[in-house]
This record gives sequence, structure tokens and C-alpha cells, in this order.
Amino acid sequence: MKIGEIAIFLQGNLIGDGEKEISRVAALDKATEAELAFIEKPELIGDLETVKASCLIVPLSFDKQITCPIIQVKQPKLAFAKIAEVLHSKKAVKPEIHATAIISEKAKIGKDVSIGAFCCIGAGSEIGNQTRLYAGSKVGKNVLIGENCSIKQNVYIDDNCRISDNVILHPGVVIGTDGFGYVRDEDRHVKFPQIGTVVIENDVEIGANSCVDRGALGETRIGEGTKIDNQVQVAHNVRIGKRVIIAAQTGISGSVTIEDDCIIAGQVGFADHTTIKKGAVIGAKSAVFPGKIVKKGVWSGIPVQPLDEYKRQHANLRSLSRLKEEIKKLKEKIKSSE
Amino acid sequence: MKIGEIAIFLQGNLIGDGEKEISRVAALDKATEAELAFIEKPELIGDLETVKASCLIVPLSFDKQITCPIIQVKQPKLAFAKIAEVLHSKKAVKPEIHATAIISEKAKIGKDVSIGAFCCIGAGSEIGNQTRLYAGSKVGKNVLIGENCSIKQNVYIDDNCRISDNVILHPGVVIGTDGFGYVRDEDRHVKFPQIGTVVIENDVEIGANSCVDRGALGETRIGEGTKIDNQVQVAHNVRIGKRVIIAAQTGISGSVTIEDDCIIAGQVGFADHTTIKKGAVIGAKSAVFPGKIVKKGVWSGIPVQPLDEYKRQHANLRSLSRLKEEIKKLKEKIKSSE
Amino acid sequence: MKIGEIAIFLQGNLIGDGEKEISRVAALDKATEAELAFIEKPELIGDLETVKASCLIVPLSFDKQITCPIIQVKQPKLAFAKIAEVLHSKKAVKPEIHATAIISEKAKIGKDVSIGAFCCIGAGSEIGNQTRLYAGSKVGKNVLIGENCSIKQNVYIDDNCRISDNVILHPGVVIGTDGFGYVRDEDRHVKFPQIGTVVIENDVEIGANSCVDRGALGETRIGEGTKIDNQVQVAHNVRIGKRVIIAAQTGISGSVTIEDDCIIAGQVGFADHTTIKKGAVIGAKSAVFPGKIVKKGVWSGIPVQPLDEYKRQHANLRSLSRLKEEIKKLKEKIKSSE
Repeated sequence: MKIGEIAIFLQGNLIGDGEKEISRVAALDKATEAELAFIEKPELIGDLETVKASCLIVPLSFDKQITCPIIQVKQPKLAFAKIAEVLHSKKAVKPEIHATAIISEKAKIGKDVSIGAFCCIGAGSEIGNQTRLYAGSKVGKNVLIGENCSIKQNVYIDDNCRISDNVILHPGVVIGTDGFGYVRDEDRHVKFPQIGTVVIENDVEIGANSCVDRGALGETRIGEGTKIDNQVQVAHNVRIGKRVIIAAQTGISGSVTIEDDCIIAGQVGFADHTTIKKGAVIGAKSAVFPGKIVKKGVWSGIPVQPLDEYKRQHANLRSLSRLKEEIKKLKEKIKSSE
Repeated sequence: MKIGEIAIFLQGNLIGDGEKEISRVAALDKATEAELAFIEKPELIGDLETVKASCLIVPLSFDKQITCPIIQVKQPKLAFAKIAEVLHSKKAVKPEIHATAIISEKAKIGKDVSIGAFCCIGAGSEIGNQTRLYAGSKVGKNVLIGENCSIKQNVYIDDNCRISDNVILHPGVVIGTDGFGYVRDEDRHVKFPQIGTVVIENDVEIGANSCVDRGALGETRIGEGTKIDNQVQVAHNVRIGKRVIIAAQTGISGSVTIEDDCIIAGQVGFADHTTIKKGAVIGAKSAVFPGKIVKKGVWSGIPVQPLDEYKRQHANLRSLSRLKEEIKKLKEKIKSSE
Repeated sequence: MKIGEIAIFLQGNLIGDGEKEISRVAALDKATEAELAFIEKPELIGDLETVKASCLIVPLSFDKQITCPIIQVKQPKLAFAKIAEVLHSKKAVKPEIHATAIISEKAKIGKDVSIGAFCCIGAGSEIGNQTRLYAGSKVGKNVLIGENCSIKQNVYIDDNCRISDNVILHPGVVIGTDGFGYVRDEDRHVKFPQIGTVVIENDVEIGANSCVDRGALGETRIGEGTKIDNQVQVAHNVRIGKRVIIAAQTGISGSVTIEDDCIIAGQVGFADHTTIKKGAVIGAKSAVFPGKIVKKGVWSGIPVQPLDEYKRQHANLRSLSRLKEEIKKLKEKIKSSE
């Protein structure tokens, strides 16, 4: 792709020669011939003389001297991500169904589907056009998978789950296993029925070794455009809205609702039946305790509090030694005045 | 199963026609023809006119008007779980050993065993009657697996481990890998021998992607009827008693003892060599610090404290700003009185 | 191996007969004929009359009466680990490439390599001499794996990653999947390019179901001799130094640096771009907050503080009820004196 074409694609201002070909993106300090880099905050960058990239994406305000062509845009990092999507789009691998894959005769496989070595697809399942199942991934019975999905190595999707279009499931992801629910009888735990499903909407990405349990009686649902990191646990009957971000090792208990556009950092824990309202942001390692409804805003702590309160509380905590000292002095003063 | 038969099975009071057939359980708001639902707390349920279930399980005290037959029982949720076990018992799938499974000639396979595609079973291992290994699960050498177990997709069980009867291991579970133990030498970490085993007793269920390490020299043991959620880590030489409940993402360090009937919430951490006495309940995200022996009772916090203390401490923490204010006023008063 | 030979290997003082053969190590209370045990702290051991081991490794100061031969050394546990390495070194399994493995014609396989059932190795990848890939492990394209590595069951290593010599990856480990990075556009999260690599240096061990993401544009690197426990998350562009110990369920966010010889306990969380200086020790369940540089020393808490401060703060917290009481009394005194 020519620099000029990239500038047009990004609706940016090209300064310099637009004829050179760009083949890939790279980091500013590593980029060389035919590579494109970006600068988000020019004030943090020192010497630009060592830059060897063939082109830079820069902020509109960028005014430093530089020898390579630049493209000025409003949001350089976003522009860089967008052009990377284009430059690094998976070359259309020739679709192939590996001879070792075990595909039920009662499964329905779309057009241009790739199925890797040692995959299994059960009866009644449907795989949409252009979807790729990588080596060792396994799909149970009556599973619906949409178009253009990427089901990576050793993923398992259990019976009756539904995966929409453009979904990426990274290696080791497990979808649709039994939720964790028991009713205590005198001398044993009786398993509560786990016969619901999982629905994963369009454009969802789920990180390696994460788990999404099926609903007990109803469904577990992950909304369109939501992105989930590695080793996240999503329990039965959880409802996650659209465009939610959930970082690694967060655990979401049964029947939690997380509404659209929330941002959840890593290692957060949600007690069952809690609700996180649209747009709330929850800091790393926080805990949402039972019964809590978390409103829009930034939250942190165990249990979560508004960020301001959390900070004040921690400042107070640090000042405790001083407080104790002051009380001691007051006591002495009063005593001496008696 | 007829409603009348269900009432007898549950030892409940049938009110209404017992002749109708019930084929499955469902949630109260979704249940329709031939489906059975339950009501735990009638006072929380509004309008019962929209109920379309063919039968309801209700508390003994239930006295609302309803058109469908009801079965009154002492514990509706427990009764519902018990009848679901019967109605949804896996239809006896015809046992099958898939042609692609690699089974050592020196392994011993019981009657009516199912072994899925791409499974491996090593020399000296024994698989009990009616046990099912699903696609891609792998069993090392000299592993004993009892009867009627369910070893799900991509599970791995390492050499010499013992799994008893009616055990369920969900997808991605890893049993018997090396514990994490090293002795520091001048310039490297020397691995402490990890040559013990894992013993999993009857009726244990372990969630997806959980790990149970083998004992270093002795054994790691999980007691009868214990239920473990997804992504739990059980380290070397841990001893977990009977009927323990452990929720997702909890981590149990080496040589911890958790006695019978404990309930451990999610994301809890146990330092090595700690002991949790019979019947203790530990709240989510708590930490049991080194050397601690946790008695029966309800505990929470980092480190764990009795729940009352934990709550008082947090209330105190929230009142710190007010305390500071009071001290300031006292100082001023004393100053002005001088 | 004869006891006399073991004494020489460990550079210890043999007291007793050195002629007996030792075939394996065992725990003190379990060891019998031909087995070797160790005692680290003789003062904690009661009766030694029940010891049935054929030989004991003991501290230099050991002076108790015992019937079996003993070997006195400076560090008994270390000596025990070292001799266990020798006695329990995996018997040279006859290298075998299983007929079901799918190996690209463009892959390069070294000498005496073992490749288990249902393994996959992609084009351009190289497997070093004596390396063992166990059943179901999968290697992408252009992956370099060094000599004498142990790649366990169901491991996945993505394209272009580099694994050096003597590396152990336990079952379910995932290396080289996409980092978790998005740039928010108006109505969706645009994926930041994840086109870097992972480099794992010599003698690294990574526990079951752990994940190491590839660098976004650069590399994620794990230094020589570092040992990582189960279910650990290492995000994109993390740099971990040499001989670092990281316990289970710890999560390391993007671009974190952990320098040589650090010890990280379980369930710790690191915010992105934080730095842990050489030799720092971080207690379990701690959190390193954004922007933090953690110096050498022992740290604990959320957020981490020097251990002394952490302990003082918790003591203060526990004394809050008393403080409140004292303030109340002061107020009364002042009031009555008015």
C-alpha cells in the first residue's frame, strides 16, 4: 500500500512523498524500510534523527523536523491500529479441511471453511462461511458458529452453544461447561441442573484458557464487540453487554450483569447477582460484594468504592500513626492541665 | 415421568392431577408444556397467572392460587435438583471406542467404557466400567480411573494418579503435574523432587482449566464429594477433605489442609502449610496467611478475620475522616482553653 | 548408586557403611529399603527410631543416634534435591515419532527427538536434539525450540516464538497468543497490532495452563533459569529477568519489567509498565499499582508497601476501635472540665 493511499484511508494530511510502498507496521525504534510507525506524544520522544521508518503517523500538532514522510491525524494510535488491521489482515489462507478432522455427517460446513488437524465437530453443528478451526479444537453437538470466526488450538465448545460472526476464541478457551451450582443435602451436594446455553455475539474476542459456563436454566451471554483477556472466568447466567473490556484473571460469578461499555481491569472479582451499570470502570484487583449495584464512574478497592473515596481512605490509613501520636499528646496535655 | 411419580420420588404432597408426563425441568418464567419449575420463595414471585409450566415444586407453606398441579416439599430447590438429576440423566450413550484413540496394549479397559477421538491411554492404566473419556483427553501411565467417571475434552492425567468413581473432570483440567518447589543454589534453582501422586476420591467434580499438582514426595488428595470450580489451583501435598466447596480462581499453596465441609468462595488464596478446620466458611478474595489455623466460623479479609471483626474494621476505616476531624476540634478546644 | 558415591557427589561426610545401593528418594516417614531421605531441622524431628530409610542426608551439626548411614552436608534440602535430580533423571526413553503426528515437510527435526501422538509442527519450525513433545502439543510456523526441552500435553506455541534449551512447558501452556490491546474508536474497539514474538531463555519452567502473550510490536521475554507456576498470566512486552520465581495465579500486565532474582508469591497483580528491581520479594495477593518502581526489599499489600510499613498499618487498623474509645473519653473529659 502506498503512503498516499494510507493517508487517504486514514483521512490524514500527508506531508512528503506519497509514492513509497509500505508493507507492515513496526515500533518507532525498530521500524525500517517499508515500515510504518507512529508517535502519540511527540513531547516524550527525544531525537528523531535515528528514525528509519519509511513513514510516520503523527498528531495534527506535530511540527518537528523529520526526513521521512508523515501523515498527520487526530488520533495517531487509533490510526496506526486501523492501518495495521489492513496491512496485517491474514492473507487469505487457502481453506483446507484436514484429513484427520472428525466431522459428523450431520454437521453443516459453510463455504471456505478451514478445519485443522485433530478437530472434532459433532452432529447438528453448523460452521459459517470463512470460519477457521485450528488444530485440536473441538465442537460438540448442535453448536452454531457464525461466519469468519477464528477458533484457535485446543478450544472446546460444548453442545448447543451459539457463536456469532467474527468471533475469536484463543487457545484453550472452554465454552459451555456446567455452571457451579449445588444444593446441599444432608450428606452430599446435589448438582443443580446446568442445562442452559451460551450465546456469544458478533466481534467478541476471548483470551487463552478463559472459561464461559453455560446458563443453569437460561443463558450466559456475551455482547457484541466485547473483548475478554486470558484466564477470565465467566460463570453461569452472566450477562455481559456490548463493547465491554475485561482484563486477565477477572472472575465473574453467577447471574452478574455487566452493562455496555464497562471497563474491567485485571483480577477483579464479582459476587453473584451484582450489577455493573453502563460505562462503569473498575480498577484492578477490586471486589464487588454481594448485592452491590455499581453506578457509572471509576471504582476501586475491596469492596469497591468511588475512586476518590478509595484514595482518601488509603491516605487516612497511612496517616494513622500520626493520628495515634496526636491523641497521645492530647491525653498528656489534658493530664498535665488537670 | 408422571407428576404423580415425581411427587412420590420427592416425598411431596401432590395437589392436582398427577397423570401428566414431565420430560424436563426449566426456569419458572420459561417453563411450558411437559416442563417442571420450582418456587423457593413465593413472596418474591409476583403474578403466577403467566406460569405455563405443567407442574411446580413449591414450599410446604405455599397457598397461592395456581392452575397447574403443584408438589409441596420442604426444600423446593433441593427437590428440583434431585428430580433434574433423574430427568436429565445422560441417556445411556452407546459406549464406543473411537478408531483414532491410542490405547496401550498394556492398559485395561472396563465394560461399557467410551473413549473419544484422539484420546491417549498409557501402559499400565486402568479405566473402570461405564467411564467416559471425551475427545482429546489423555491419560498417562499406571493411572487408575474408577467407574462411571466423566473425563472431558483435553483433560490430562499424569502418570500414577488415582481417580475414584463418579468423578467429573471438566475440559482442560490438568491432574498430576509437578508441584512448584525449588531449592536455591548459588546460581540456579534446583528442582525439589516431584515424585508423589494425586488421589481423587469418589464423587469429586473439578471445573474447567483447574490444576491439581502431584505431591512432592507424598500425595495430594481431594476428598469424597468435594466440588471445585473452574481455574482453581491445588498445589502439591494439599489435603482437601470431604464435601468441600471451592469456587473459581481460588489458589491453594503446598501442604495446605482443608477439612471436611468447608466452603471456600472465589479468588481466595491459601499460604502453604495453613489449616482450615472442619466447616469453616471463607469469603471471596480472602487470604489465609502463613502459619494460620482457621477455625470453624465465617471468615473474610486479607488476612482473614472473623466476619464480625472484618466488618467492624471496615466500618472503622470508613469513619477515619470523621475521627481526624474530631481530633482537630479537640486540639483547638484545648488550645483555646490554654 | 552406592551411598559412598552419593556422599562424594554431594561432597558430604559419610558416617556408616557406604556400600548399600540407593535407588530413589523418599519422605522421612515413608522411606524404606534402598531409599534416601533428608532432615533439615533435627530439632523438629522427634523419635528417629522409626526411620527405615537406608540413608539420611543431615546437617553438619547432626549428632543424634541413628542406625542407618548418614551423610552430613551444609544444606540438606539442597543436597537432597541435587541427588534426586540424578536418581530420578528421566530414563532415556527411546525417542519415537508417533505415526499420528502431523509434521510439516518444511520443519527441521533434530536428533533423538520424541514427538507424541496427535502433535502438530508447522512449516519452518525447528526442534532441537533430545527435545520431547508430548501427546497433543502443537507448534505453529517458524517456531524455534532448542535442545532437551519438554513440551507437555496440549501445549500450544504460536508462530515465530523462540524457546531455548532445557525448557519445560507443562500441560495446557499457551505461548505467543495475541496480547490484549485495543484502541477505542467511536463505536468499537480496534485491535492494536499484536505482531511481536516471545523469547524463552534456557532452563525456564512454566506451569500448567499458564499463558505468555506475544509482544505487540516487540518481544515478550522470560530470562534464563526463571520458574513460573501454574495459571500465571504474562502479558505482551513483559520482560522477566533471570532466576525469577513466580508462584501460581499471578498476573503480569503489559510492558512490566521484573529484574533478575525477584521472588513473586501467588495471586500478585502487576499494573502495566511497572518495574520490579533486582532481588525484590513480593508477598502473596499484593498489587503493584501503575507507575510504581519497586526497589529491592520485601513488599506486601494492595498497593505494595515495604513489609514493615504494611505490618504497622495493619496493627494500626486493628487498634482503631481502641483509638475511637480514647477520643470519646478525651471529649468527655474536656466537656466535664468546661
